[in-house]
Amino acid sequence: MSDAAPLDGLRVLEISSFVASPLCGLTLAQLGAEVIRIDPIGGAGDQHRWPLAPSGTSIYWTGLNKNKKSVTLNFRDPEAQRLVADLVAASGPGGGIVVTNAVGRPWLGYDQLAKVRPDVIHLQILGHHDGRPAVDYTINAGLGFPMITGPEGHLGPVNHVLPAWDVACGLYAAIGVLSAERHRRSTGQGRRITLALEDVALAVAGHLGFLAEARLTGADRPRIGNHLYGGFARDFATADGKRVMVATVTGRHFADLAAATGLAGAFAELERLLGADFAVDGDRYEHREVIASLLAPWFAGRDLADVAQGLAGTSVLWSPYRQFTDVVADLAGNSMLHEIDQPGVGTVPAAASPLEQDGRPEPSPASRLGADTAEVLAGLLGLSATRIRDLTEHGVIG
Amino acid sequence: MSDAAPLDGLRVLEISSFVASPLCGLTLAQLGAEVIRIDPIGGAGDQHRWPLAPSGTSIYWTGLNKNKKSVTLNFRDPEAQRLVADLVAASGPGGGIVVTNAVGRPWLGYDQLAKVRPDVIHLQILGHHDGRPAVDYTINAGLGFPMITGPEGHLGPVNHVLPAWDVACGLYAAIGVLSAERHRRSTGQGRRITLALEDVALAVAGHLGFLAEARLTGADRPRIGNHLYGGFARDFATADGKRVMVATVTGRHFADLAAATGLAGAFAELERLLGADFAVDGDRYEHREVIASLLAPWFAGRDLADVAQGLAGTSVLWSPYRQFTDVVADLAGNSMLHEIDQPGVGTVPAAASPLEQDGRPEPSPASRLGADTAEVLAGLLGLSATRIRDLTEHGVIG
Repeated sequence: MSDAAPLDGLRVLEISSFVASPLCGLTLAQLGAEVIRIDPIGGAGDQHRWPLAPSGTSIYWTGLNKNKKSVTLNFRDPEAQRLVADLVAASGPGGGIVVTNAVGRPWLGYDQLAKVRPDVIHLQILGHHDGRPAVDYTINAGLGFPMITGPEGHLGPVNHVLPAWDVACGLYAAIGVLSAERHRRSTGQGRRITLALEDVALAVAGHLGFLAEARLTGADRPRIGNHLYGGFARDFATADGKRVMVATVTGRHFADLAAATGLAGAFAELERLLGADFAVDGDRYEHREVIASLLAPWFAGRDLADVAQGLAGTSVLWSPYRQFTDVVADLAGNSMLHEIDQPGVGTVPAAASPLEQDGRPEPSPASRLGADTAEVLAGLLGLSATRIRDLTEHGVIG
Repeated sequence: MSDAAPLDGLRVLEISSFVASPLCGLTLAQLGAEVIRIDPIGGAGDQHRWPLAPSGTSIYWTGLNKNKKSVTLNFRDPEAQRLVADLVAASGPGGGIVVTNAVGRPWLGYDQLAKVRPDVIHLQILGHHDGRPAVDYTINAGLGFPMITGPEGHLGPVNHVLPAWDVACGLYAAIGVLSAERHRRSTGQGRRITLALEDVALAVAGHLGFLAEARLTGADRPRIGNHLYGGFARDFATADGKRVMVATVTGRHFADLAAATGLAGAFAELERLLGADFAVDGDRYEHREVIASLLAPWFAGRDLADVAQGLAGTSVLWSPYRQFTDVVADLAGNSMLHEIDQPGVGTVPAAASPLEQDGRPEPSPASRLGADTAEVLAGLLGLSATRIRDLTEHGVIG
């Protein structure tokens, strides 16, 4: 077994904004890659994205740009554009990797960069497949999830708060980089990859069966509140005003839930009455309302602590619902989470990679925007202090 | 540039169920890896997961197990357990990679498998960090998103329908495999990795700023319906009973929206009145209700086609809401999506990897459960037909 970070030696240039491409860089950085985020002077569109700290520093930006170096250049200046090409060319055998969601900038495109480095790995994130821009919330609207999310009987869409497609897109991008670099190490060949947020969403929905189901049935799933489609899972209120999510995704889970709540006999009677078998996913789902009605009093009659005690030692999957303030009050004992001192923000919890392994780097604070410009240009391109001062004075670098 | 699949030569053994670990294997398979899913005879807990085709075949299972080989073994039989170790040992220089969410099976653990193959890469997916089981819906309940999702004024949690944490976990697992294999190719060293669904969710929430925000403010975000936190985005109804999602995540988007709707003058007056600047994210967010009130009549007075015409050529990000049946009726022209003939299901749309590149394999149907057992054991372990018949007769393999 190794105790080194798995991506030692990898070097990635990220020209990015918002969630997907920054999360790609962050993910690689937290496994040991050197990631250099290059922004326009003053920052990209996400520089002041909410939430903000009282100082005005973006908690969001600093959260997504931990463990990276920050370089700022005047993107409109041909000399700055050449510096990017120089960085691609000079970034060593584990470098020559560009991840970007910027469009309409030929100097950042595969064709231009392959001229200075034929083995460049270039990953372009797009909104729609055809190049039209999009964000997570418009992609999600176009896909179908908002119409089957939310309380039964609710009319209209329910948007998600977690930008799940952005997150998946950023992780797919990291997979794209790593797979391309593997191939380059075998063959010496670079690669041009495009990744559309729309395609990420369609692929995932397809893999999970949503597209094939709609094709086969010609119908849309109903909106079923907090129930689980094709099984039995739901939220229940407890006597002390808390709420718990309870899930049975196998027959064993359900049998354990029936036993723990003292309802095994009642459910057996109900199965006979209905001609159902609650060990079967579809039968639990079909009869979800009557099952829930029988279970609800058990939860409603107990405080959360008693519910926990009653379900302890069973296979039943359950959790109290919590707010984020509850979550941050209860982070102790998780080796992934560290308290970091993020300039402009304060001492806050920050996560390392969830991939727990020897050599996993600790989270380190995001650089101040542009803080590493001189160091990167001197280190990778060998620019002198005089030259860097000159570029700064002429507004080429920030 | 290369025209080969990037992961040619990689071989992964997946002992898995439900979403996360199967999605890991699928993701690697759709980039060219040979992925062998090993199930207990009769299938794992996800074999009959909904949605189901009329034949009873799981659309979900076949969706998540495309492009793989399927092997079935009697997991309780020590001889079958030895076959798994033999496969790990014999799977070649790009093999010796195990991804599993199975727990409580020492013969599948890192320690055992490292004895037969010291450079094994072993990725163990867990529910909670401490090893307690969990599923996406219980993790999500414990994290905070359900309490800030859904219509303003709604009481109680709103669960997501997309198992977003499972998806992210599966993609992180693929990243874990690829990064570990990169390091093994450099150093010859294997790696033990654990990945908890809970940690995936905490890390992503942390990266997006939810944890630091809750720590700094001591308060939870409000439930704001379909509005976007810290910007201006919302759904609007059109004259013909459709609904659209409209997002402005930069000042330019908002200025374009104001111009396209003929409201630039009204918004300028409103900014003066309120002392606000709608080019600033926070000001658009603070005054979201009055902004929405002014915009709503423009949408309500137009059919969807006219809304589309009015916003065409602007930077405004928008999309009609659709149902899944709308989505599958409109898949033409996307090179990622193919029609495949999935035995037991029928001809259905199936996605290749969203990472578009030369050499991307096409989606191929999931194998029938256990269909590749003999081929894999003969090919990798050199077992004779007689021996395979013998193992089948003794119930060691399926």
